[in-house]
Amino acid sequence: MINLQSLEAKLQIKINDPSIFERSFIHKSFVNENPGVIPNERLEFLGDAVLELATTSYLFKFFPDKPEGELTALRSALVRGRNLAKVSEEVGLGEFLILSKGEENSGGREKSYILANLCEAVIGAIYLDQGYQVAEKFIMDHIIKTLDDILANKDYIDAKTKLQEAAQEHEGITPEYKLVSESGPDHDKTFTMGVYLEDKLIASGNGTSKQKAEQHAAQKALELKGWDTD
Amino acid sequence: MINLQSLEAKLQIKINDPSIFERSFIHKSFVNENPGVIPNERLEFLGDAVLELATTSYLFKFFPDKPEGELTALRSALVRGRNLAKVSEEVGLGEFLILSKGEENSGGREKSYILANLCEAVIGAIYLDQGYQVAEKFIMDHIIKTLDDILANKDYIDAKTKLQEAAQEHEGITPEYKLVSESGPDHDKTFTMGVYLEDKLIASGNGTSKQKAEQHAAQKALELKGWDTD
Repeated sequence: MINLQSLEAKLQIKINDPSIFERSFIHKSFVNENPGVIPNERLEFLGDAVLELATTSYLFKFFPDKPEGELTALRSALVRGRNLAKVSEEVGLGEFLILSKGEENSGGREKSYILANLCEAVIGAIYLDQGYQVAEKFIMDHIIKTLDDILANKDYIDAKTKLQEAAQEHEGITPEYKLVSESGPDHDKTFTMGVYLEDKLIASGNGTSKQKAEQHAAQKALELKGWDTD
Repeated sequence: MINLQSLEAKLQIKINDPSIFERSFIHKSFVNENPGVIPNERLEFLGDAVLELATTSYLFKFFPDKPEGELTALRSALVRGRNLAKVSEEVGLGEFLILSKGEENSGGREKSYILANLCEAVIGAIYLDQGYQVAEKFIMDHIIKTLDDILANKDYIDAKTKLQEAAQEHEGITPEYKLVSESGPDHDKTFTMGVYLEDKLIASGNGTSKQKAEQHAAQKALELKGWDTD
């Protein structure tokens, strides 16, 4: 059983249905050792969608002149795992996590991806128990408030732009991208794109669009070249 | 200028701000020929997130016992391009599309992916002009109502399950999956998985998780084997 008063204080809400929040803290590892218990993955699935609408809607309204591509980059920066894990840490959600002994012993309570998923599950629980407005307020207070830092640190500049700037600076070359391969049915294709510097293949990346695959290839090229300095 | 009365009748709403809806019909091809005009991509970005929350929330509540993976499969079936394009066709949104001459001449008004994106842009416009509840009602009436057919036709059964059944039936073999390669930074990896029948590589697929990459590989194997019958 979780300490409800402590959780209410952390979330700054009055909980209606404690069972929803109890479930939000059950990691799937615990279910392996305790068959029949339901893990927090469904709530994480729900919370992810709430988080997506709240961040999308905010960015849409706050940046009336930015094209969709830039909004996507900002949203990715807001909802990426390490940002959500930080929220779980700041709010202090990890202490309520219910893990298997194995996961506990391997430091699961501090693992970034477990804390990121937990953040989404708790958002799902808030949405279910309190409605969209309250969930949106939590997202504003804890996630959208990181936007200033993201903007200040240019933490959203995409890998292709970074690579373009670095390749110009270090080698006086503009990177080029070519399709290496594609797979999957028409409505659900994935692509492998290669990034070239003066006809030399530096790295390749996969993605559900050519644009995403190019971003992955560029990120890999930045790492391989040692140009990824932040 | 679009015919507002006709659009209101199709959407069954009373429009507050016509300019929002006008923009939702401007395809990016038109902008190439008319610099300064803003296309519907930002509204599509917004509508996609509204659609995601409405479908996720419905599936979460309607199927209290289904695990997250099955809900994801059902949501993918609901929001996939060909389903959204069908909605645009049924509601009759294509006639309002504003395209470049080139796109018009190449049949853009009937292209499935243009109509699918249009559906999301119009959902974004409804959300912005009328609020979440009205957008959700549109999604219920036109998109979630296709769920019965999706369930009846088992249109959501994932490619891996289909391949497993087909491989057993035709060759008495269970497919196996192995990692071919991976790329990208830790928080944003993409994977290439191969599917094997008795150690023979049949197909490979890419995805942002091993599970997704396996689904793409399985789909490709189904097509290559001629086992993809629906």
